[in-house]
Amino acid sequence: MAKLRVHAFSVSIDGFGAGPSQDLEHPLGVGGPELFDWFFHTRTFQKMHGTGEGETGVDDEVAARGFENIGAWILGRNMFGPVRGPWPDESWRGWWGEEPPYHVPVFVLTHHPRKPLQMKGGTEFRFVTQGIESALEQAREAAGDKDVRIGGGAATIRQYLRARLVDEVHLAFSPVVLGRGEHLFAELDLRALGYACTERLAGDRAVHVFLKKT
Amino acid sequence: MAKLRVHAFSVSIDGFGAGPSQDLEHPLGVGGPELFDWFFHTRTFQKMHGTGEGETGVDDEVAARGFENIGAWILGRNMFGPVRGPWPDESWRGWWGEEPPYHVPVFVLTHHPRKPLQMKGGTEFRFVTQGIESALEQAREAAGDKDVRIGGGAATIRQYLRARLVDEVHLAFSPVVLGRGEHLFAELDLRALGYACTERLAGDRAVHVFLKKT
Repeated sequence: MAKLRVHAFSVSIDGFGAGPSQDLEHPLGVGGPELFDWFFHTRTFQKMHGTGEGETGVDDEVAARGFENIGAWILGRNMFGPVRGPWPDESWRGWWGEEPPYHVPVFVLTHHPRKPLQMKGGTEFRFVTQGIESALEQAREAAGDKDVRIGGGAATIRQYLRARLVDEVHLAFSPVVLGRGEHLFAELDLRALGYACTERLAGDRAVHVFLKKT
Repeated sequence: MAKLRVHAFSVSIDGFGAGPSQDLEHPLGVGGPELFDWFFHTRTFQKMHGTGEGETGVDDEVAARGFENIGAWILGRNMFGPVRGPWPDESWRGWWGEEPPYHVPVFVLTHHPRKPLQMKGGTEFRFVTQGIESALEQAREAAGDKDVRIGGGAATIRQYLRARLVDEVHLAFSPVVLGRGEHLFAELDLRALGYACTERLAGDRAVHVFLKKT
């Protein structure tokens, strides 16, 4: 059966998946970009967004894994943009410009209905107001035989973990402390939920930990 | 100036420094021993407590660092034993038998006075009821030019970190999730307190992260 996967979710040493005070200027929160420093340097990232060659090695290999066999994505609304509450208009079209790096349907969790948004390169943002299980059902249908990837953020991943719907989680521990922000692990009993660490890889810029549902 | 150091404090992927339900049978809490698996395998540990040769390599090197130039230790009371409340008698003499692995004065934080306890091999347990700053002052005096090491547990380390008294912290991340227990990072803003990650080493059984006060 196709899987629900989390990849390259970056956390600080102290467990934060984003910095505090997220807004238009700080989509990852204050200090958040330090979490993704390892990813920004990979060849995988540079081929998608950058201008350089990017680095190969462990960090790049695990980054690339996250894009293999993915037929649909699920994002929390704050991953899609800084707009809160009802959509004032259709002008916000994501953080990624006219050709986002997804190239498949992307299901955005929101409490506020909005028409689907077709982007260049095969990405279509579809807004789901019926909750995480409905989003997963729709994403699975769109993905066919392929897997579904949850892009984040922390709150969305936590919801899917609590519901035991996630099959595999790749966390990238970056060598920074954030002190505040969105904590991935608080009030989340991963052990009781049946998750165990199955693999661990040290990259040049982050340590990668893989959890699976047992 | 001599330093206050934390070494080999082992945490799970999800940030727990001990498992839940600590008692006489589970001094590290349920699941807690998994955190220390990396340490139990080192030559450093085996020379102190074990019967085997132990493993060399990164894990052993960082374990050994923690015993270099230490002139006194500070322990939270639960690190010393399972007794809670006033000491019923003098019978509890620590988890470590008649010759504990410290070989220097060890200051035990407690709310309940007790006479010093001289053990074999140079370890003397001294019980401090006047709080963390007094314990540190006494430990520094006992240590002379050498450093003071905090042995734990999580609550004791958190108190010293909050007071910005700790100079260096070595955390060992073990590839396990605990889900519950004593969380090291909860409500602790290490960044605001001035701590930053300065070094990171991947061992065979744990990933070692070093923080310093900036």
